[in-house]
Amino acid sequence: MNGAHALLATMRTNDVTTVFANPGTSEMHFVAALDDAPDVRAVLCLFEGVATGAADGYARVTGRVAATLLHLGPGLANGWANLHNARRARVPVLNVIGDHATYHARFDAPLQSDIAAVAGALEGSIHKPRRPDDVADETARAIADAYGPPSRVATLILPADVSWGALERTPSHWPTAARGAAVPLDEGLLDHVVTRLRTTRAAIFLGGAATTGAAMELANRIGAASGATVMVETFPTSMDRGAGVFQPERLIYLSEFAVGQLAEIETLVLVGASEPVGFFAYPDVPSRLVAADCEVIALAPPGSDVSTALAMLVDQLDAPRVRVPAGRAPEPPSGALNAQSFAAAIAATLPEGAVISDESNTSGIHLYGATTFAAPHRLLTLTGGSIGFGLPVAVGAAIGTGTRVIALESDGSMMYTPQALWTMAREGLDVTVVALSNRRYAILDFERQRVGASGVGEASERLLSLDDPAIDLCGVARALGVPGTAVTTADELVDALRRSFATPGPSFIEVPLASAF
Amino acid sequence: MNGAHALLATMRTNDVTTVFANPGTSEMHFVAALDDAPDVRAVLCLFEGVATGAADGYARVTGRVAATLLHLGPGLANGWANLHNARRARVPVLNVIGDHATYHARFDAPLQSDIAAVAGALEGSIHKPRRPDDVADETARAIADAYGPPSRVATLILPADVSWGALERTPSHWPTAARGAAVPLDEGLLDHVVTRLRTTRAAIFLGGAATTGAAMELANRIGAASGATVMVETFPTSMDRGAGVFQPERLIYLSEFAVGQLAEIETLVLVGASEPVGFFAYPDVPSRLVAADCEVIALAPPGSDVSTALAMLVDQLDAPRVRVPAGRAPEPPSGALNAQSFAAAIAATLPEGAVISDESNTSGIHLYGATTFAAPHRLLTLTGGSIGFGLPVAVGAAIGTGTRVIALESDGSMMYTPQALWTMAREGLDVTVVALSNRRYAILDFERQRVGASGVGEASERLLSLDDPAIDLCGVARALGVPGTAVTTADELVDALRRSFATPGPSFIEVPLASAF
Repeated sequence: MNGAHALLATMRTNDVTTVFANPGTSEMHFVAALDDAPDVRAVLCLFEGVATGAADGYARVTGRVAATLLHLGPGLANGWANLHNARRARVPVLNVIGDHATYHARFDAPLQSDIAAVAGALEGSIHKPRRPDDVADETARAIADAYGPPSRVATLILPADVSWGALERTPSHWPTAARGAAVPLDEGLLDHVVTRLRTTRAAIFLGGAATTGAAMELANRIGAASGATVMVETFPTSMDRGAGVFQPERLIYLSEFAVGQLAEIETLVLVGASEPVGFFAYPDVPSRLVAADCEVIALAPPGSDVSTALAMLVDQLDAPRVRVPAGRAPEPPSGALNAQSFAAAIAATLPEGAVISDESNTSGIHLYGATTFAAPHRLLTLTGGSIGFGLPVAVGAAIGTGTRVIALESDGSMMYTPQALWTMAREGLDVTVVALSNRRYAILDFERQRVGASGVGEASERLLSLDDPAIDLCGVARALGVPGTAVTTADELVDALRRSFATPGPSFIEVPLASAF
Repeated sequence: MNGAHALLATMRTNDVTTVFANPGTSEMHFVAALDDAPDVRAVLCLFEGVATGAADGYARVTGRVAATLLHLGPGLANGWANLHNARRARVPVLNVIGDHATYHARFDAPLQSDIAAVAGALEGSIHKPRRPDDVADETARAIADAYGPPSRVATLILPADVSWGALERTPSHWPTAARGAAVPLDEGLLDHVVTRLRTTRAAIFLGGAATTGAAMELANRIGAASGATVMVETFPTSMDRGAGVFQPERLIYLSEFAVGQLAEIETLVLVGASEPVGFFAYPDVPSRLVAADCEVIALAPPGSDVSTALAMLVDQLDAPRVRVPAGRAPEPPSGALNAQSFAAAIAATLPEGAVISDESNTSGIHLYGATTFAAPHRLLTLTGGSIGFGLPVAVGAAIGTGTRVIALESDGSMMYTPQALWTMAREGLDVTVVALSNRRYAILDFERQRVGASGVGEASERLLSLDDPAIDLCGVARALGVPGTAVTTADELVDALRRSFATPGPSFIEVPLASAF
């Protein structure tokens, strides 16, 4: 019984049974210990950003912790961007990082670095057992910290000698991670909120855990009874959508327009969300999006019991049930491929219960509207702005749910973590990747104008264009073991989607677009 | 004249004219300013690890600073692993990271993170101008810090408003980065070193800047005159090699054997290198590799003038010139492909003046020996142990030298930063990628035994194997714009190498191996 065994035993006791791994020498005892833990599913990822994004996706769809397995500082750094997204999604992740043996650190070997400093910037918690006998308790604490609430990325740094060292005493049972209490609601605010909802132009602003169908239904009742608008943050962690599910108004990504959207709001009641701010700063656009005299009330902060908060408001307002307006999914489109017909094709064919991992960026601009009355599904979005999240999150979501996942990518964003395709192939995951190819970082054309960086010269053009050479996206997928098709019309896209949904395992559809929108 | 212009003007004044870029919104003014700086070569990379590895490779072959351009914390994190290698290579890099506008940071927008904490773990220097008028001086300081000596990664964090804000006063000239003095030699050690070289079993241990042909020639004279062995660190930053170049004995990677190699050495004189330590810790293998009673003398620390130190020893020993033994490159191999015939094929065909970026790992085990009498060339190795360095470093080396670069990869390592292939295609770089495919993380088979993680079960086997599905390495290359060939015999490999060396632009050769060695 060594430290690695104790780590795995504690993980299993706490129902952490999925590990997304890219191991190296320091992690070999953990890898060996997996042979004694047949109920743990270890999933090999060819790059650490795939492992961390997969843990994020798994947590988003299950609410449960998955573990990563990364190799020292460089492994953590390679996985950091998707951990940043997980942090912003406020999901629980157990981030396991092998380190040099405790006694080896002071020799400053080539792979030595300050792992805690890099992990610290994730603003979660950091755990580093120093003896094999400490591993179990530290692991349980890390899992508890990961769950929170609020949930976060808990990093467990496991020195090699602590991993391979024998326990002096094998405990009779492995420690259980205590679940923390929810962040308290300030019930004293309730009366005031009710008054403001009734007497001012108010909006309920949903985010975090408040984007389930049940929570949004409560918010809809509150809105209907009080006259308040119900809104949702721009980038929800996991949002229930589709026919029969109440859909709040989504805050517009573009600050210029979001400011207009919120201009008349006198009261913004935050439920599960933080106050909305500009994704970036832009010259002459404010960072805060609400009007200067808007009262922002944090009724249910992240990590609090958002459902109780909403139920209390429903109660106070005596808000009756509300019928969600019926609507129809778009007909399957025909003819030319463009951003509209792409969105319609997804909406028309989406299987019930599917999960969308959306990193389609500019090309996906019509998706949200088009899928409002699609079959009920879940939408996962880019919470932290770290590009390269879509394919890895799809891996984790597919493993977490076992249902069909649709990963919407663009050529630029797909190339950050294409290695995820191989894991989809190896694990036979039911993921349909739809990759839009406009051969540009089109969002930057756009952002460039917004920040006022005018003029288009040759040098800057070459930093925005992806067409020299054009990337053969299908070729990338096929080389990594995922069958790929390129479609040229909307009809072909619809057919390809239907075939993919009917075929177990992953498939890849390349959608060339003539322009960004 | 805005902050971005001031940054670029200061870079140009200081001869920093190459930028490896993966920009986002916060960097758009820098990108726009490139249109006014036609002498700056901006190279688009599809992933940040390519940009940072390229800056490392550029610095290794030119001794000059290249800049990166990265997007906030996630961009830095994605580039961190190859910056770690650059740090361990002790090469100068100007790491430019766009950040949120200064006034936007406090709103904790989705991409907000502690960039300085992540950059701090690179143990270089960090610069963050707060006003456009401060950019030039901070940039000059960063470039000066990058050069050192010792050289390091200097990070310049450029907030968006500092980038887009107008300078109040345009300086009449842009500041010059002062070059620091070399780290002082302790000349008082010289007599003692000479005595120890003459009276004990001694070795001169070369590393860092002391692996040029000229420095190694001096070391050879010292060895010949004193009887000392001349050795070189396991992973040199850039080492001159090939026919006519004196080749020191390379310290073996495996600590178990390195301990034996050093067991009789009573005096180890460090020149440009740190004391050798185990790459990892292994049970029952010491971290320090020298014998307990070995006297380790840091004659010329990293950043000192290693040539002067060696010349002084030559002088004191009155060491005559030494003929480098003649030898012959291997004949072009024929027949089966294996690690031996692969190494022979490289050695037999290598063009004079070529640069090898070596990330072939286990499969490249015979390379160092085979190329001893190849045409004169330079060898760049994995200084920091962060896998994914080979292709990006080849990009930077090709741009820095304009000569043929051979990137030796393995299937496992290539998949960390395959995006570099696209930049090779776009820039038409003369890079020949030779990718060995054994469909395993073979080094881990090996490391696993060494750390004593015994037993091979199904779960662990799946974390070491890459054959389900096998990756079509050529397919990856072709999809990213690099023409690829798979060879099946040593003869075909020789032909493919010769064709590639005779053809401008990149090419890719896949070499399937039946087993690791």
